[in-house]
Amino acid sequence: MSNGRRKSKEEVIEALHDVASEMHDKMSKGIPPTMTLPVRSKSNIGFDQRLGVYKYGKKRTVRDATSLGSARQLLRSLHVTEFIEEMINSGKSSTLREMYYISEAWGNGKFHSQNESNNLAEDLEIVTKCLREDFRLRPEEDGARIIGNVTFEERNRRGDWMRINCRDDVGDSGYGVPYNVESEKLRLIEEDVDFIMAIETGGMFDRLVENGFDEEARCALIHLKGQPARSTRRIMRRMSDEWKKPIVVFADCDPWSFRIYASIAYGAIKTAHISEYLASKGAIYLGITADDILAYDLPSDDLSKQDLGALEAELSDPRFSTGWWQQQIEMMKEMGKKAEQQSLAKYGLDFVTDTYLPEKLAHPDVGLPY
Amino acid sequence: MSNGRRKSKEEVIEALHDVASEMHDKMSKGIPPTMTLPVRSKSNIGFDQRLGVYKYGKKRTVRDATSLGSARQLLRSLHVTEFIEEMINSGKSSTLREMYYISEAWGNGKFHSQNESNNLAEDLEIVTKCLREDFRLRPEEDGARIIGNVTFEERNRRGDWMRINCRDDVGDSGYGVPYNVESEKLRLIEEDVDFIMAIETGGMFDRLVENGFDEEARCALIHLKGQPARSTRRIMRRMSDEWKKPIVVFADCDPWSFRIYASIAYGAIKTAHISEYLASKGAIYLGITADDILAYDLPSDDLSKQDLGALEAELSDPRFSTGWWQQQIEMMKEMGKKAEQQSLAKYGLDFVTDTYLPEKLAHPDVGLPY
Repeated sequence: MSNGRRKSKEEVIEALHDVASEMHDKMSKGIPPTMTLPVRSKSNIGFDQRLGVYKYGKKRTVRDATSLGSARQLLRSLHVTEFIEEMINSGKSSTLREMYYISEAWGNGKFHSQNESNNLAEDLEIVTKCLREDFRLRPEEDGARIIGNVTFEERNRRGDWMRINCRDDVGDSGYGVPYNVESEKLRLIEEDVDFIMAIETGGMFDRLVENGFDEEARCALIHLKGQPARSTRRIMRRMSDEWKKPIVVFADCDPWSFRIYASIAYGAIKTAHISEYLASKGAIYLGITADDILAYDLPSDDLSKQDLGALEAELSDPRFSTGWWQQQIEMMKEMGKKAEQQSLAKYGLDFVTDTYLPEKLAHPDVGLPY
Repeated sequence: MSNGRRKSKEEVIEALHDVASEMHDKMSKGIPPTMTLPVRSKSNIGFDQRLGVYKYGKKRTVRDATSLGSARQLLRSLHVTEFIEEMINSGKSSTLREMYYISEAWGNGKFHSQNESNNLAEDLEIVTKCLREDFRLRPEEDGARIIGNVTFEERNRRGDWMRINCRDDVGDSGYGVPYNVESEKLRLIEEDVDFIMAIETGGMFDRLVENGFDEEARCALIHLKGQPARSTRRIMRRMSDEWKKPIVVFADCDPWSFRIYASIAYGAIKTAHISEYLASKGAIYLGITADDILAYDLPSDDLSKQDLGALEAELSDPRFSTGWWQQQIEMMKEMGKKAEQQSLAKYGLDFVTDTYLPEKLAHPDVGLPY
């Protein structure tokens, strides 16, 4: 799966037809149809030290029609491939939820839960080496918002390319990233920034926008909206690749926020089959760190049991195996505290942009690689 | 509180000074300072049948400094009014969360929970007859997204007015509504639509956009994002008032969705002090209705205990006192079922725009008032 070039419509359809062909070949030989796919358990997902991302291993499983459950899955796969092909040909897209409801008409192939249909969509991604976006399947959640002096072209419903500068052509809420940010839908046109700052919470995003931090620090600001959507991670990766800009992550000091960072920098287990495509390897974690809680005497909250469990799991997570992360996580456990980005407001509304961010950006540990 | 005219900066500051004056007057007479505000309990919130919205009654309470808790509240009120005045003078705004953290520097006036600071902001709205937006206090959540042939002007950070047509000048994610939609920030310029359709879920909003329903049915589409933010309700009210357009609500068939509708049409208890300002009285509930589950044989889920409790409460809620609502709610209870908007996908991706919405919009019960 190369980063630059994506599959054409014809190639996607061909890859889907291959799924049907495997079944057809078996049946014409008088044996039960099969579908071959990687084992989707944690044991077959490994951290590729060389690439620095999560990847599937080589274990394969064969799903065949000798049990009722597997036969159903094969039937569903055929219905789904047919549905996707129809969407591609008619220029449509659908939410995963809609596909779940559409299966009402598929008789024995009907999904019994949204989870079943989501998993099958992922199976097909893995088998065909396509993306859900190639299949025209959309998530429910909104994508990120971007503000800063970067210019995109988005192809609108009429097929026209619309040029949008994320500083001059948008309101306060910024440019809303569409679900599909591949080159047939979105083009990166030009930029005049030094780096990209990804921000966890809406409150902090709005603060940096109001304080004009994008102009002052020459950066583009992205509101992650919590755990970032695939389109959010993908557009950061594209900006990182095509514009050669470093990605800096500014989040709460909280085990769940660390995971947000890790999914941006190294990929996530759930999307291990497309890590190479979504992960921005050089992404830098800027803060809030455990250090910061002490250094800036930030208002903090006690770690819950769940928080402590998550920190414990992170200690053995390969994405947090560096000395720096191990130290930060141990320090957090010792203090028993976490803190929010917005706690910097303790020192007034301008502290984050006048003092905190300039100090952190200048600090060698998180210094920008240029 | 008139609908068209909002308070100027000077008037907002004056209203805040009045709060301080009341305290100062008492103290200079040698008696404990006080703050007079309406009783904020359900018993003092009534449904105004004539206006068709929730309103506060006449019961007043006097908060004075004779107990530690009340004295703290008065101290906080003074800190908050000072903070707001500073923001107005410096052209800043802040999230409610930031204000909570800023109180770290207020000694005995420090808030102990976000709830305390949110409630005080509401108290001040009630006492001063201003809006939180006048106070420059922002919520965390994003506002709505709009797509359709309507044109706004939004004043950007530099003070320039930026013209945005919500069909031609935005990407697929639409125009993001800012937190402040008052006339100093947002102007309604022109429109070429027949009505406004408010949509509960992102999946359905995207479906109607992809199917071009805004152009076909000559409407503006608004994604409510669940329980709509104040700015979302306010911009609908302004479009309803200034453009004389009917508001049509398209939501799930679910007791919580009914509440979304009711908060749009009649206001909510929590914002009873500004119902006149947020509620779009003529808003029409289009669906999904309990009738529809039967008429269109929609995939449905069983009502939970919580759902049944909510329906029961709605039966005695004045906002649902009409015969039509009572019948729909009783029918739902009998069926024991609820259904999602997206369940219409059972009949394919175009069913909602080709069949369901045209049929419902033509139906006399929900017919557009023109």
